[in-house]
Amino acid sequence: MIDVIAFDADDTLWHNEPLYAEAQQVLAQVLSPYMDPEEVDRALYATEAQNLPYYGYGIKSFALSMVETACQVTGGKIQGEQILEIIAAAKRMLSHPVRLLGRAEETLCELAKSHRLMVITKGDLLDQSAKLARSGVAHHFTYTEVVSDKTEQTYRDLMNKHQISAERFVMVGNSLKSDILPVAALGGQAVWIPYHLTWQHETVTPHQIGGLCYYELDDISQLPGLIKQLDGSQATPNAPDGS
Amino acid sequence: MIDVIAFDADDTLWHNEPLYAEAQQVLAQVLSPYMDPEEVDRALYATEAQNLPYYGYGIKSFALSMVETACQVTGGKIQGEQILEIIAAAKRMLSHPVRLLGRAEETLCELAKSHRLMVITKGDLLDQSAKLARSGVAHHFTYTEVVSDKTEQTYRDLMNKHQISAERFVMVGNSLKSDILPVAALGGQAVWIPYHLTWQHETVTPHQIGGLCYYELDDISQLPGLIKQLDGSQATPNAPDGS
Repeated sequence: MIDVIAFDADDTLWHNEPLYAEAQQVLAQVLSPYMDPEEVDRALYATEAQNLPYYGYGIKSFALSMVETACQVTGGKIQGEQILEIIAAAKRMLSHPVRLLGRAEETLCELAKSHRLMVITKGDLLDQSAKLARSGVAHHFTYTEVVSDKTEQTYRDLMNKHQISAERFVMVGNSLKSDILPVAALGGQAVWIPYHLTWQHETVTPHQIGGLCYYELDDISQLPGLIKQLDGSQATPNAPDGS
Repeated sequence: MIDVIAFDADDTLWHNEPLYAEAQQVLAQVLSPYMDPEEVDRALYATEAQNLPYYGYGIKSFALSMVETACQVTGGKIQGEQILEIIAAAKRMLSHPVRLLGRAEETLCELAKSHRLMVITKGDLLDQSAKLARSGVAHHFTYTEVVSDKTEQTYRDLMNKHQISAERFVMVGNSLKSDILPVAALGGQAVWIPYHLTWQHETVTPHQIGGLCYYELDDISQLPGLIKQLDGSQATPNAPDGS
């Protein structure tokens, strides 16, 4: 029997990565006199990775890394006007309407009738809380957890806090690295629903998957069926190669 | 009898405002060819206030507002090199050692023997959690709450979440606006310990204080004495004029 079904939010419940892609296009445009868009992407990713211990995840971190990248790749020659364009792009991200993924709302509505639901999301506290409030689906969730990272320890702490045993805990998300592998490693039920765009930092190489088992669905609307199977203990997780 | 003693963190348990002041000096230095330091402070505060709904509180928000201010007050003429100086100042803030206020540690140690302690702090989730971890006093706290703002609703939600009644809840902090008035308005016990520097946004005008009662201490080491009185219900809050 499943106790709690937890959901990642960005790119699991609502579209998120396209907002980042759009802002990156602004950056690429601003830096086009200096380098190719692909080089800009690489430079930005390197800056983001370096800044992660300082800034953590989220749009404000992304904005600061965009500004820093712009200053660095231009050898300090970029001007304030162009920096303001980058900041404006980040602000558009922060006030963008929340666009739910298809069938996310009906699925949450159905599952909330039989199970306690939780959101577990990383990023800026204010931004994530505000998006949940704007999403129109906040009332389906018994618990909301904004965390600064999603590691095994994060999930262990959350299970302890809410007194949920791993085998009765389901985590649903689009990131193998953040949503699936740490939960599977703890003996929890992990359900991977890939999103068509994924941030480089969230990808994993095959050797990181080890012998861990998780479920894979094409679409969130398939989730109630899987949960019914799990409640009856009839489901068998995919092998780690996804077969 | 007091159930839970909650503490603000920045400028209540550890020094914080001096880090902001130091970074603002860097900004003033960078902008010195364009305007006076006082004008820079005013422009920065105006930008911060405008950005609050987008960014919320914390160092990353402050950093983005510094960059934006620099671009604006120079009419877009500032160059990337100088922006990098501002970003470097923000990163120094994020990795700065945590410097506890005098006698904060002993006081927490003493109070933790008899009461459950809580931290309630607003700002960046990662930064606030990391500071608590670095502070060496995290083990004294039963609960840690990082919130995006500190309003009456925030405190009401936290009291509900932890099932604490207002009259058995003590909030200790340096900000009348964020730590004291909302708690006093809910019928909680609020203990104001002023810090010698206070961010403009956290100051209140006398008419906001209304008829609310709170305690005022010079130093955190006086807190155990007050808590003993409150446990015995012998204390009388100061009148709102602080007399």
